[in-house]
Amino acid sequence: MALIVEKTSSGREYKVKDMSQADFGRLELELAEVEMPGLMACRTEFGPAQPFKGARITGSLHMTIQTAVLIETLTALGAEVRWCSCNIFSTQDHAAAAIARDSAAVFAWKGETLQEYWWCTERALDWGPGGGPDLIVDDGGDATLLIHEGVKAEEIFEKTGQVPDPTSTDNPEFQIVLSIIKEGLQVDPKKYHKMKERLVGVSEETTTGVKRLYQMQESGALLFPAINVNDSVTKSKFDNLYGCRHSLPDGLMRATDVMIAGKVAVICGYGDVGKGCAAAMKTAGARVIVTEIDPICALQAMMEGLQVLTLEDDVVSEADIFVTTTGNKDIIMVDHMRKMKNNAIVCNIGHFDNEIDMQGLETFPGVKRITIKPQTDRWVFPDTKSGIIVLAEGRLMNLGCATGHPSFVMSCSFTNQVIAQLELWNEKSSGKYEKKVYVLPKHLDEKVAALHLGKLGAKLTKLTKDQSDYVSIPIEGPYKPAHYRY
Amino acid sequence: MALIVEKTSSGREYKVKDMSQADFGRLELELAEVEMPGLMACRTEFGPAQPFKGARITGSLHMTIQTAVLIETLTALGAEVRWCSCNIFSTQDHAAAAIARDSAAVFAWKGETLQEYWWCTERALDWGPGGGPDLIVDDGGDATLLIHEGVKAEEIFEKTGQVPDPTSTDNPEFQIVLSIIKEGLQVDPKKYHKMKERLVGVSEETTTGVKRLYQMQESGALLFPAINVNDSVTKSKFDNLYGCRHSLPDGLMRATDVMIAGKVAVICGYGDVGKGCAAAMKTAGARVIVTEIDPICALQAMMEGLQVLTLEDDVVSEADIFVTTTGNKDIIMVDHMRKMKNNAIVCNIGHFDNEIDMQGLETFPGVKRITIKPQTDRWVFPDTKSGIIVLAEGRLMNLGCATGHPSFVMSCSFTNQVIAQLELWNEKSSGKYEKKVYVLPKHLDEKVAALHLGKLGAKLTKLTKDQSDYVSIPIEGPYKPAHYRY
Amino acid sequence: MALIVEKTSSGREYKVKDMSQADFGRLELELAEVEMPGLMACRTEFGPAQPFKGARITGSLHMTIQTAVLIETLTALGAEVRWCSCNIFSTQDHAAAAIARDSAAVFAWKGETLQEYWWCTERALDWGPGGGPDLIVDDGGDATLLIHEGVKAEEIFEKTGQVPDPTSTDNPEFQIVLSIIKEGLQVDPKKYHKMKERLVGVSEETTTGVKRLYQMQESGALLFPAINVNDSVTKSKFDNLYGCRHSLPDGLMRATDVMIAGKVAVICGYGDVGKGCAAAMKTAGARVIVTEIDPICALQAMMEGLQVLTLEDDVVSEADIFVTTTGNKDIIMVDHMRKMKNNAIVCNIGHFDNEIDMQGLETFPGVKRITIKPQTDRWVFPDTKSGIIVLAEGRLMNLGCATGHPSFVMSCSFTNQVIAQLELWNEKSSGKYEKKVYVLPKHLDEKVAALHLGKLGAKLTKLTKDQSDYVSIPIEGPYKPAHYRY
Amino acid sequence: MALIVEKTSSGREYKVKDMSQADFGRLELELAEVEMPGLMACRTEFGPAQPFKGARITGSLHMTIQTAVLIETLTALGAEVRWCSCNIFSTQDHAAAAIARDSAAVFAWKGETLQEYWWCTERALDWGPGGGPDLIVDDGGDATLLIHEGVKAEEIFEKTGQVPDPTSTDNPEFQIVLSIIKEGLQVDPKKYHKMKERLVGVSEETTTGVKRLYQMQESGALLFPAINVNDSVTKSKFDNLYGCRHSLPDGLMRATDVMIAGKVAVICGYGDVGKGCAAAMKTAGARVIVTEIDPICALQAMMEGLQVLTLEDDVVSEADIFVTTTGNKDIIMVDHMRKMKNNAIVCNIGHFDNEIDMQGLETFPGVKRITIKPQTDRWVFPDTKSGIIVLAEGRLMNLGCATGHPSFVMSCSFTNQVIAQLELWNEKSSGKYEKKVYVLPKHLDEKVAALHLGKLGAKLTKLTKDQSDYVSIPIEGPYKPAHYRY
Repeated sequence: MALIVEKTSSGREYKVKDMSQADFGRLELELAEVEMPGLMACRTEFGPAQPFKGARITGSLHMTIQTAVLIETLTALGAEVRWCSCNIFSTQDHAAAAIARDSAAVFAWKGETLQEYWWCTERALDWGPGGGPDLIVDDGGDATLLIHEGVKAEEIFEKTGQVPDPTSTDNPEFQIVLSIIKEGLQVDPKKYHKMKERLVGVSEETTTGVKRLYQMQESGALLFPAINVNDSVTKSKFDNLYGCRHSLPDGLMRATDVMIAGKVAVICGYGDVGKGCAAAMKTAGARVIVTEIDPICALQAMMEGLQVLTLEDDVVSEADIFVTTTGNKDIIMVDHMRKMKNNAIVCNIGHFDNEIDMQGLETFPGVKRITIKPQTDRWVFPDTKSGIIVLAEGRLMNLGCATGHPSFVMSCSFTNQVIAQLELWNEKSSGKYEKKVYVLPKHLDEKVAALHLGKLGAKLTKLTKDQSDYVSIPIEGPYKPAHYRY
Repeated sequence: MALIVEKTSSGREYKVKDMSQADFGRLELELAEVEMPGLMACRTEFGPAQPFKGARITGSLHMTIQTAVLIETLTALGAEVRWCSCNIFSTQDHAAAAIARDSAAVFAWKGETLQEYWWCTERALDWGPGGGPDLIVDDGGDATLLIHEGVKAEEIFEKTGQVPDPTSTDNPEFQIVLSIIKEGLQVDPKKYHKMKERLVGVSEETTTGVKRLYQMQESGALLFPAINVNDSVTKSKFDNLYGCRHSLPDGLMRATDVMIAGKVAVICGYGDVGKGCAAAMKTAGARVIVTEIDPICALQAMMEGLQVLTLEDDVVSEADIFVTTTGNKDIIMVDHMRKMKNNAIVCNIGHFDNEIDMQGLETFPGVKRITIKPQTDRWVFPDTKSGIIVLAEGRLMNLGCATGHPSFVMSCSFTNQVIAQLELWNEKSSGKYEKKVYVLPKHLDEKVAALHLGKLGAKLTKLTKDQSDYVSIPIEGPYKPAHYRY
Repeated sequence: MALIVEKTSSGREYKVKDMSQADFGRLELELAEVEMPGLMACRTEFGPAQPFKGARITGSLHMTIQTAVLIETLTALGAEVRWCSCNIFSTQDHAAAAIARDSAAVFAWKGETLQEYWWCTERALDWGPGGGPDLIVDDGGDATLLIHEGVKAEEIFEKTGQVPDPTSTDNPEFQIVLSIIKEGLQVDPKKYHKMKERLVGVSEETTTGVKRLYQMQESGALLFPAINVNDSVTKSKFDNLYGCRHSLPDGLMRATDVMIAGKVAVICGYGDVGKGCAAAMKTAGARVIVTEIDPICALQAMMEGLQVLTLEDDVVSEADIFVTTTGNKDIIMVDHMRKMKNNAIVCNIGHFDNEIDMQGLETFPGVKRITIKPQTDRWVFPDTKSGIIVLAEGRLMNLGCATGHPSFVMSCSFTNQVIAQLELWNEKSSGKYEKKVYVLPKHLDEKVAALHLGKLGAKLTKLTKDQSDYVSIPIEGPYKPAHYRY
Repeated sequence: MALIVEKTSSGREYKVKDMSQADFGRLELELAEVEMPGLMACRTEFGPAQPFKGARITGSLHMTIQTAVLIETLTALGAEVRWCSCNIFSTQDHAAAAIARDSAAVFAWKGETLQEYWWCTERALDWGPGGGPDLIVDDGGDATLLIHEGVKAEEIFEKTGQVPDPTSTDNPEFQIVLSIIKEGLQVDPKKYHKMKERLVGVSEETTTGVKRLYQMQESGALLFPAINVNDSVTKSKFDNLYGCRHSLPDGLMRATDVMIAGKVAVICGYGDVGKGCAAAMKTAGARVIVTEIDPICALQAMMEGLQVLTLEDDVVSEADIFVTTTGNKDIIMVDHMRKMKNNAIVCNIGHFDNEIDMQGLETFPGVKRITIKPQTDRWVFPDTKSGIIVLAEGRLMNLGCATGHPSFVMSCSFTNQVIAQLELWNEKSSGKYEKKVYVLPKHLDEKVAALHLGKLGAKLTKLTKDQSDYVSIPIEGPYKPAHYRY
């Protein structure tokens, strides 16, 4: 696929796999709308006022059907939008096609190379001569990263005339990032500075991206305000937990058709993602072993009847399914994989592909890769002739092998995104948000939840005045102190 | 797709969708073998003696990867095999291709018309001039039905000269059956009699097929011995229960990506299939309502915290997902469907498509069918503009929308099949089996289970002599009286 | 407590712990009636006709509140009743008092010695000069055993003049049985023959008692007809399963207050009782290990995510709670107990105290018994100073440490008892029942279930005529074939 | 029971129900020690240094076996201790006896009147002439309240000469508090001032008590530093959640023996306590309906398949078991109770007895109270003759009807208490703690969890240096940011 930007008849840019899937995408989009009451409520509540009139929004977030509903919510509120995916396997091509045809500039397809991935990211950030976007919707922080690295390089270049050297790093992905910045520098040595100047802020979706933001905040490197959407309760305790409870078995089944009942599943990490994964495996009839570094999470796992062990030889050789959820790297190493049962399944639902030692696996002498089907590979070790099955090449298996999280739970997450974007945009001139990381206030978090209850037939109880006084909680909320854990 | 039989280079007949998928099928077959310890143990135990040498086996059973392992177990034991699917949507085309290329005559593809379906069934029964098969592996009883109807028609024809009249029935599918028999009669008026003569027996897989067999036994119409594999404990209490617990959510997710958590799911019928379905929905976070006619099963549902209600208006209009598992007809009628919520999902995992009133739906005045993707249709009613989503056109949704039951549990079922086929074949001349329906003896049932424990790491306790005497149970089993319910 | 029979003011005999608890018993009885719809429906349906007019019924069945409602159902139908418990720890003294005062002759208290236990059994069978009871309600078969042993001894005595020799057996309990028979012989050498003559039949409640009956049937020793109530679906699949799911944690909590979450529980046996126990422990947050001899039950356990292992050293030394449910003997031996963790809990919910090697424990050199409270003993081994906690002296812990199964599920079991007693009595002269073991017909089983649905708010679906014809099932049931497993 | 303080032979004061139960208490204490690894680890780690040497600690916390282990941990670290219970029904008399005899001054018995309750509280605070305690361990805040009210009254008295007027309030309990303070004033008008002066601080156990503290902090009324132990993760997410999951069914079973399976349970409030209660009822086979004011918690309930409804007539009249967990008042009113099913069970596990409208019930014209047994009352309404069953007179049912939370989870809570007390005492002169409410730092919270893992056989994974750098988390923790929700 040559990297040439195409244009719709109306002149909007795009690059997708197959525009003929737009109708199919539209049909699924319409189904998803019914399942995404929070986003639809935003359209109803905010649409008439067109609050995003004049706003340019760039998104770097899995280009799925659910994201398509998010994008069309942003456009329904008046925004102009450019989009790329934040994972090489996560795009649903029919969703990309529908959006590209109907609503926004999309640069995304399932199965990008890393080179293509960063090309797409850059396309999404490039709003032409006038600079970059006003707002970024980020997931994992790659769009934010590119701007920060770009600005850093431009500053060095300005001071020293030095351009970034892609060979200065071992990390193949970072080499690409540096190449892109280098090329950019040669065209416009102020490209990323201009973006930074224009940018009102970013709202970030995931644990990993948020962690990066806090680190930048601490080191003083953060260039614009950021809203941490991940830590809205209606995001992290829903999307991460219930989303993964749904999508882990979905991915496993689509990729391998394996019977989960009777198997031993190892879940590395027992945060919200791990809790969802462990619950799914347990209720499907697997025996679950958890690995953890944090004694509190470990004790939670024990209270649910799960074993907490380390990835020692007996665990490694006894288990059938391994799932990484940690947000850290080097969790399952090639030496672990060599000791696994024949056809043990290894997959990642947490973070980057480096949770699994893909590099160690790929470079293991004599190892043989047999692609069963896209995103399902059997890797056979030369000595044992025993193979393991790696899903989505070590990347997020729920997005690579299935369709990610279902619409309803994504509606919670994305309603937070819309509210965060609105907040940033509305306060762009007020000085309310400095170059720091913010969390949405609790009453907005509660509002997101409230918007999703009607669809499920839930009825809330209302405090009486008397009760409200007794417990010193306002009748309309917020109902909990900031530190409440749910 | 023109209905022309093709031939492999070695001259074996077949008709499949795409022979180029044979390699992919072979890779998945190899994965499945690891998950089907019972079948592989049969190959090891019986293979060397080639007990099926000279036996012709016709199978009418979902042509999936798992069935492919069954077929190759039969051929590994010496049989010649011809195969068709027993459901128009259940074939996995890569499995069909691999078997057609490597092992047996296959007539099956995903998405057959009813016409094509019965053509395939007839092809699978047609062993050429020498008559039909020696043995039948049946699922739902269509192969058995065709022979019985054929024999009946030939008898009438012999006595009266009358040929079957397809217009004598309203049922479109039975019209096709009669047409086929009619054509057959014109070629050879003893065709089905010859089949009957040769046939040693049938082993039947499902509740529905077994029920037909018992009815024929009672009316004296049964033409050959039959082994009821469905009522082996290791079939009905495993495949039906744990298989559906796995494949219902799998089918729902692949077809609709819908979030199950928070939804209301109605499970019609609380037999083994219904129990598996209810468990899957409940553990995925749905609220489950059961409908039942049997007070005992209803009380079981109540003990699990499920509601037992009838499909009255409030249930119909409140629920999000409807699943039929009854083995009966007319469970969800078009009048129910009209009152459902927009985008309620209606599907069947029990029996024929007549569990759902597909005919009523299709002929409803002004109804509009929108195919989201194959096997996922939205039907919109003209008055309400509200739509429901019907999966697999009312046929088995786990096979139509997903890949059926996983290998491990199918290994239990199919090991029963292999043992039943061996039993029929070995006793073909002994007179042990009359024209009746038989169940496998308990020690064989227990053996099937035992063959599957090692793979899961289970260790059995052994009775001491003293304990064995105390409870009057042989050390080697069988461990339970015939009426034991598990 | 001297073994002297007392009399109420109306002259009815009894022997209970404390008559002053009768009011308390009556209050709990009234609560239980609301929870026992099946029994109350029997009173309504059959009471007016007084079908048991003239019938003498002896019961040997845990003298609990629930049994009290059973007794008063029998008396409400016209019977005269004498009762004893079938377990030395299972009597609820307030229930015994209420019944003794108001309704029937009771000989039972919590904490009988074995000597007292058999004295009570004999009292319950002794209806004075006119011989024994017309009907027996048995649980475990002790009343039936006493008569059979008595008759056997009388026959030997008649032929040889020999009386039973209690020293001829090692079993301390059987020594007592022989002593009682010996004394009886000296008073009336035809005592048990007279009982046998009068007896119309017995209905038996449990797996163990039923097994004894089938053995007697096979050997031709059975002296009167027996109805196997245990194998009614509404008994074994409810009382055994859901009853134990309730009463195992209840007993554990009352006896030890131990936190179940986080612990490792070993369930010996995965029949209905074991399934209920395993479910209770798993959902309370324990990790469950099952031991089994039967590969089918073992595979069921695996499908639920439980481990199936043997009681090897690692299991024995790793687990916290051990529960026997097998119906066999010698399951947990003193050598196992010595290797257990300090304060591991050992208990039996299956059968007699010989599931646990109580004799081995009691006679272990240097072992020290510390009674924490009645039915909760810590046994300390001299070498390790490590102790284990044995509940209810190895007898049924749910009855010894808690109050047995709750009313609702006992209503199912006991409604079967009432129906069985009615059946035996109504057919006493018809010759319908020979000296064999019978199971209640399915339509009565279904009726028992139906009587319990209303209380829970369940609504049954009714077959249409058309559906009934299609599946060949009568609209009014029975709905399942005899071999159906539920 | 006359309110006269007794003395042990060594001169220590006490007032308990029955000193002869001390041996029984000691036996259960020894069992509990094995289940409370955190407390025992504190004894090992801190005992030798006797850090509490010279410290007087007053505790107002359910006088149970688990609390007894806490008390003896405090004394093992050198403290002198006086104790009362914080609930009139929660004392375990054998625990109180063992502690009174062996370790500390105890004023507590099961079934105190309110008058007696406050007498006990005052006794526990009264250390004789030298003023009050140095430290308070509080649960619900009654000890803290008494001092604050006392100081307030003394200030008014000093300024105006006015003494508190018990008739100034309708609340009968607060009348007693005022009476006590009034009497105190007459003896020593500086009594509570002296206490305040001496006090180093309080550590508070529950949600309700903590809420009071934060209110006092906000209004500036807080007289001494407070550590909020409730919001340690290892308290609120363990004790509240897993403790109630254990103790709700325990209390229900002991009080009523009711079958939970098949019933409809209404859980009012879905905080940590409500989540534990709902999980327990659901897994026991009940259908659970939740009431909530907070949309986020409501959505969590929906995601678990629970219904969220309001206490409207249909819910009220359909449910069998009602449990309040809200921490608010007026949750279940007498008008609700009148519409309930006969023998519906109403209980509170959340907060004070005013969660249930006990006053409305008691004063309902013609209502009749029938005490089944202590803490289990049936209240019959005159019009309907229908009764409801109220547990523990509306007070905490798990403590009133059972034995509270099991040792293991209390060990988590109480280890937090010990650490909090140590922190307050060690920093008494450092000025680290002002008159504010503090939470323990995360590393101490994690330490509490770590101390409980070994007992359960859990093994933690250790970060490598490289991983630690990658995620910027210290190898030794703390592992999570402050806002993490677990």
